[in-house]
This record gives sequence, structure tokens and C-alpha cells, in this order.
Amino acid sequence: MLALRVDRNRIAVKEVEKPHDELLVRVVLSGICNTDLEIARGYAGFSGTIGHEFVGVVEESGQRVVGEINAGCGECELCRGGDSRHCAARTVLGIHGRDGAHAEFLHLPAINLLPVPDNVPDEHAVFTEPLAAACGVLERVTINGDDHVAVIGDGKLGLLCAQVIALTGAPVVLIGKHAEKLRIAERRGVETTNPKLAAKRKREFDVVVEASGSATGFGLAIELLRPRGQLVLKSTFHGKTELDAAPIVVDEISIVGSRCGRFAPALDLLKKKAIDVDSLISEEYSLSKGVHAMRRAGTKGVLKVLLRP
Amino acid sequence: MLALRVDRNRIAVKEVEKPHDELLVRVVLSGICNTDLEIARGYAGFSGTIGHEFVGVVEESGQRVVGEINAGCGECELCRGGDSRHCAARTVLGIHGRDGAHAEFLHLPAINLLPVPDNVPDEHAVFTEPLAAACGVLERVTINGDDHVAVIGDGKLGLLCAQVIALTGAPVVLIGKHAEKLRIAERRGVETTNPKLAAKRKREFDVVVEASGSATGFGLAIELLRPRGQLVLKSTFHGKTELDAAPIVVDEISIVGSRCGRFAPALDLLKKKAIDVDSLISEEYSLSKGVHAMRRAGTKGVLKVLLRP
Repeated sequence: MLALRVDRNRIAVKEVEKPHDELLVRVVLSGICNTDLEIARGYAGFSGTIGHEFVGVVEESGQRVVGEINAGCGECELCRGGDSRHCAARTVLGIHGRDGAHAEFLHLPAINLLPVPDNVPDEHAVFTEPLAAACGVLERVTINGDDHVAVIGDGKLGLLCAQVIALTGAPVVLIGKHAEKLRIAERRGVETTNPKLAAKRKREFDVVVEASGSATGFGLAIELLRPRGQLVLKSTFHGKTELDAAPIVVDEISIVGSRCGRFAPALDLLKKKAIDVDSLISEEYSLSKGVHAMRRAGTKGVLKVLLRP
Repeated sequence: MLALRVDRNRIAVKEVEKPHDELLVRVVLSGICNTDLEIARGYAGFSGTIGHEFVGVVEESGQRVVGEINAGCGECELCRGGDSRHCAARTVLGIHGRDGAHAEFLHLPAINLLPVPDNVPDEHAVFTEPLAAACGVLERVTINGDDHVAVIGDGKLGLLCAQVIALTGAPVVLIGKHAEKLRIAERRGVETTNPKLAAKRKREFDVVVEASGSATGFGLAIELLRPRGQLVLKSTFHGKTELDAAPIVVDEISIVGSRCGRFAPALDLLKKKAIDVDSLISEEYSLSKGVHAMRRAGTKGVLKVLLRP
């Protein structure tokens, strides 16, 4: 079968063996995530088929599915508790120890697969994973209706986080540099601003979600937080940033890492059409044009790029 | 009156005007904190009388008291809620906008002063502030009896944190380099180890308290935490450290700043003799020898140095 593969920073579409064992899923549509771009640059030291956002059809049953990307050992305390996201022996679809979704087929344990409601088109279902990641913020911090929340970064993840948090009823400000991207959130009732204007709103926010993946975003987040406020880190930075512990201790700030979320709440939001994902789709390519698609996904101003095997 | 004062990094005992307004407290005993040493190095840009750990006697009533160090505006939402520790307009005894405790007299708002129980000697009561700071960890994170906790740093703060957390029933490991300091915690049933041996216990701890004030302590803390574990920052670092966001996001770690704690729980522990503070006292000097005492407090192996006006 065809698959978009990375081998020591070289990327190519190649013919590889069809996977066996577990449930075989024919990929219908996959989405390129910024993590894919980072992996292609060598982050995580992964070689193999990349991609972890997909909607597909189980070969055996014909069931349309999406799939949680962390495949646990099934035996440790975490897995037995029903949450494999931190299983120490886990593989992660297209990220760690397991070939991914930018391919004609993938396989995942049956327990990872969730049926897609009929009224959710493929072009929406393919957003389940990143939308679940946005919902995951609410697994890590409690947001009350009167909390003031800022989201930094108007990329795909920031736009999803801002929309998800707005549904809690809390006032949300999305901070970004791109008017056309900010407009997507504005249409869903989210206030928007740019980093320069935001910097004047020091100590105004109870929760700040850092989704820009930049060190300047991290610094701005610290400044925007009120004492005892919570900074949710959604993006790993490219490289390291400086940490000045003094303001964190003096203002008793919490920094809370957040990675993957559960799929069920995300599917539920898609079913209710509560989130605008259509506006996030920039381009679609056939899998054979995968390398070009990756280049496009890394181009400024481009949001989600989809691949169709 | 005599007072130990810092002016642009120069430190001296000087004759200054006796404070007026609020309640005047005659200082009986004050304790030198590492923060005093940092302030004398120019941290926080404070000039004036330093010192924020004390026990004293209210001049007017003769009541023996200790005093919470944050003096709020009394009018903002936080102050009206009974917690001035993050009042934006606060002054802080011997740290910010208010002369401190290494002096013959100090003044504080009456609301800041708490009577000292009769069975608590001055030499114990002077530890109320740092012990409250240790208790403050439990205001910021919930520790259950089956949580595995590590405290990094066998200085005064680390020794107090380890003892306080041990009282919750949770197994606590104190990590430090000084056998004679570690022994103080061991006598209270705390397991101890050194940083090299601790480094082999990766991902073993639910909560790690960083009380060493060093960048290497911070790095070790991250390594020791299990996924979704909590790192409590008790010490500001000297300068900045590098932050690699990736492990924080991937392992969904929380970093929680913690500064001042409430005095009432600390006084209660002192009253019950639940904490060994006697072993933390290294030396005592008269206030007139304050500059020498500061030098001693900064000497390796020396724990608490007390000043008696």
C-alpha cells in the first residue's frame, strides 16, 4: 500500500506492507497536524508512517470510525483503569512505535475505535483528534462561567480551544496576528485581539491557554495571568525557553501541561455542530501528493490540510 | 532605634526612627531567611529594614505575637475576602514597601497579628512564618495518604516541608546532600536520600516539592514525577533556568507556585510540638552583630540564624 513515510528527516510516499493484526482500518481522510511537521524535522526521533488525525472504515465490518491515538499495553494500572494516554509502554499512532494515518490503511486496537455518528461528514470527523485535544483542556483545569480566559495562538489548535472554551459560557479572548483566522473565532462569539493590545491586559485572566508554540507566547501568558491563575500549555515549544521561577512562586501561578483529550466529548460536539471546523480546512490533496501537502501545511496562513488516500 | 538595613546592596546596622501608626511591636527574636540573603544581593530592589520572621510583644498590650507578612490595602476584593497575600497594593514586611523585623521595633496592621500560645517558646514561635510557608504547600496541592512525595533540598524550607507533609501520612522522601541535615528529617520518620540515588527513581512520585532553589533541583523534579504529577515550586531560582515544554505537555505535568501560607495552622503545629524546629537553629546573635549574622546564615551547613535585638 502507499504511505507517507519519514526516515531520518527524509520524507517520501512509499509502497509498504499492509498492516495486520488488531483492526484494519481503510483511511478515508487524514489531517496534517503541526506535530507531523515537527516529527518530519526530527522531533521525537520517529521513523515510519506519520499522521494521527483520521476518519476511516473498518475493513471487516464497514463501520466508519475515528481512533484514539494512544494504544496502551492493556495490562498496567492506567490501562486497566480505562485511560491508556499515559501508559508507559504505549505506542502512539504516527508518533511513537506505530505507523500512522497518512496511509491507505492503518491498524489500531478495537478498543481505540469509536463509531462516527451518521450526521457527521468525513470532513468533520477528521477533526475529532485535534478537537479532543482542545476539549482536553477542560480535563486539566476547571473553567467556571465567570472565569476570564485567554487563548494565545490563532492556529488550528488555538481556534479549536477558543471555540470549546467559549461553550462553557466563560468570556474568552483569542490572541493572534492573523485577522482572517481570528474572524473564524469571532463568528462563534469569541472576542479577539492581537498580542500587542493583549500585552496591555496584564493580570486580567484566570486561565490562559498557550497554543502558539512559541517562547514569546509563553512569556505573554505569564504576564496576562492574575495571581493564582492557571497557564495551560497545549504546545511544546520548538526548543527550549527561559523560565524565571520568581513570578511563578510570588504570584503562585500554576502551569498545567495538556496533551490528548478523550474522543467521546469531541464527537458529541461535532454531532451537535457546535464547533466550526469547515472554516479550518484550507486544502485537500491526494495521498500521493503528501510531501507537497506537508510543505503547504507548513506555509504561513494555511490552516488544516487534508490527505485523501 | 537600631535596625539592620540594606541600601543599594550595602548592608549595615543603623539608628532609625521608631515606626508609628498601626500596632507597634517590640521584636523579641527574628530569623534570617534565604530571602533576606537574596534581598541583600539586590533581588526585589528593596531598600530598608529587612527581615520577615519574628516573634514580638505588642507595646500597648504586652501581648506576645507573630505576624503575617503581607499587609493588604483592606479594600480590594481579595482583602475583603480575608486573604491579602495577593493584594496588588500590598506591602510585605521587610520585602516590599515596609520595613522589616530585624529591628528593635516593627509595625503591622492589627489584623496581621496572631497571639502566640503560652506553651510555645520564642525560639519556636519565630519559626511560624517559614512553617506557614511549608504548610502553604497543602493549600496549593492536595496530598492523599497514598501519594508518593519527594522534597528536594535539605535546607530550612525543605526540612520544614518534609516534616509537614509527613504529617499527612503520605510517604515522603527528602532529597539532599547533607547527612547531618537529613538526619533531622529522619528522626521524624522521613525517608532520605541524595540526588544521585534519587535520580534513579524516575517517574515514581505523585508530588515533588522543589525547595533547593537550584536549576538542577528543578530538572530533577521533572524527572521524578509520574505522568500527571505535580511539581510545587517553593523557591525562586537564582536567575533563570531553561524550560523544555515538551515533557510538561507530553506527561501532562503541573507546575504549581507556592509562596506564603496561613499562620494559624503553623501555630497549631508548634503548639502540638508536631514539628522539630529546635534542630533547625544553628546560631543566635544580637541585632548589633546583624551583618556578621547574615554572613553566617549564608555559610554552607548553617541552618537558621536568629537575631535578638
